[in-house]
Amino acid sequence: MNQRLLRQLEFLVEIDKLKSVYRQSYITDRSRHENDAEHTWHLMIMAIVLLEHADNRHLDIVKVLKMLAVHDLVEIDAGDTFAYDERGHEGKYEREKAAASRIFGLLPNDQRDEFLALWEEFEARETSEAQYAAAIDRLQPLIQNYRTEGKSWREHGVTSDKVLARNRHIGDISRELWEYVQTLVADSVSRGYLKP
Amino acid sequence: MNQRLLRQLEFLVEIDKLKSVYRQSYITDRSRHENDAEHTWHLMIMAIVLLEHADNRHLDIVKVLKMLAVHDLVEIDAGDTFAYDERGHEGKYEREKAAASRIFGLLPNDQRDEFLALWEEFEARETSEAQYAAAIDRLQPLIQNYRTEGKSWREHGVTSDKVLARNRHIGDISRELWEYVQTLVADSVSRGYLKP
Repeated sequence: MNQRLLRQLEFLVEIDKLKSVYRQSYITDRSRHENDAEHTWHLMIMAIVLLEHADNRHLDIVKVLKMLAVHDLVEIDAGDTFAYDERGHEGKYEREKAAASRIFGLLPNDQRDEFLALWEEFEARETSEAQYAAAIDRLQPLIQNYRTEGKSWREHGVTSDKVLARNRHIGDISRELWEYVQTLVADSVSRGYLKP
Repeated sequence: MNQRLLRQLEFLVEIDKLKSVYRQSYITDRSRHENDAEHTWHLMIMAIVLLEHADNRHLDIVKVLKMLAVHDLVEIDAGDTFAYDERGHEGKYEREKAAASRIFGLLPNDQRDEFLALWEEFEARETSEAQYAAAIDRLQPLIQNYRTEGKSWREHGVTSDKVLARNRHIGDISRELWEYVQTLVADSVSRGYLKP
């Protein structure tokens, strides 16, 4: 058998575990939390549909999609950290870095290096592709929260100033999406989904 | 508000329902069936990782990823049809065509037309991109079945000749992946995962 293909398949089987990493946000029928794998699919289709709203009109969409496809895989080992859990963010990068080495290390070396670089680029949020991918990654749970009447925000007592502070970077890549988020947050406060 | 953005967001909220469309295949820890949204994420990352095994080296990967992202959305209305359920395939195209009109119709017209065309292209399986996307869409459940000791095959009494007949089109785009599938099927029979 082709050894390269076998390594790729071992990686593709290992990452099935992402389907069992649950997040704080709910699917919109509120029946259960969503998992990282379905969340990632949602981000990838959002990135495709909303691309025109990126202020930089020359984004490399392949890079964005690859970055999104792999960005949460580290959570197979490191677990999901709720966006508004400040203590949970201590040591997060180190835990995730170790996870990235193990999981991407299952791949042939060239693909391991490519995926590690994509993950680092996403985390650093410096390139337009990383900024756009990160904006989509923040926008999706805001919409899930809004459409579930703030279910996850209310469970954790999240306030509107924290939501705005944590998601402000959406404005670095899209004036339009950031305006939408501000409207959504204001409306969430007036509806009682989110504490002022 | 930007009316175009609002239509896009309505579509993106509607398709959250894909997370509640369950398939016959299991996630690899066998704890539950997998849903279409997480299945689609798995396909998209598989398409990225296995691209070098497509015999046509000039595939448009953006088109492949877009096609995969949207290919199962029709199942929100039409439901999942098990690959080996011959009666379930009667009238399937008509049911799915109506679903495509409704769901893609939520988008602005240009995006509706693009996604409808991608879905039709996927279904027709004539272009290399559609052949590759369809091969990945067939390979993934084979691997899920193999890694769960044929759990779904056994529940439905599926035989190896049916698996080979139903998946033969993988060979249209990748000699290498089709060789792998033949090995996997032979091994599944010898281990008792699949009836001869």
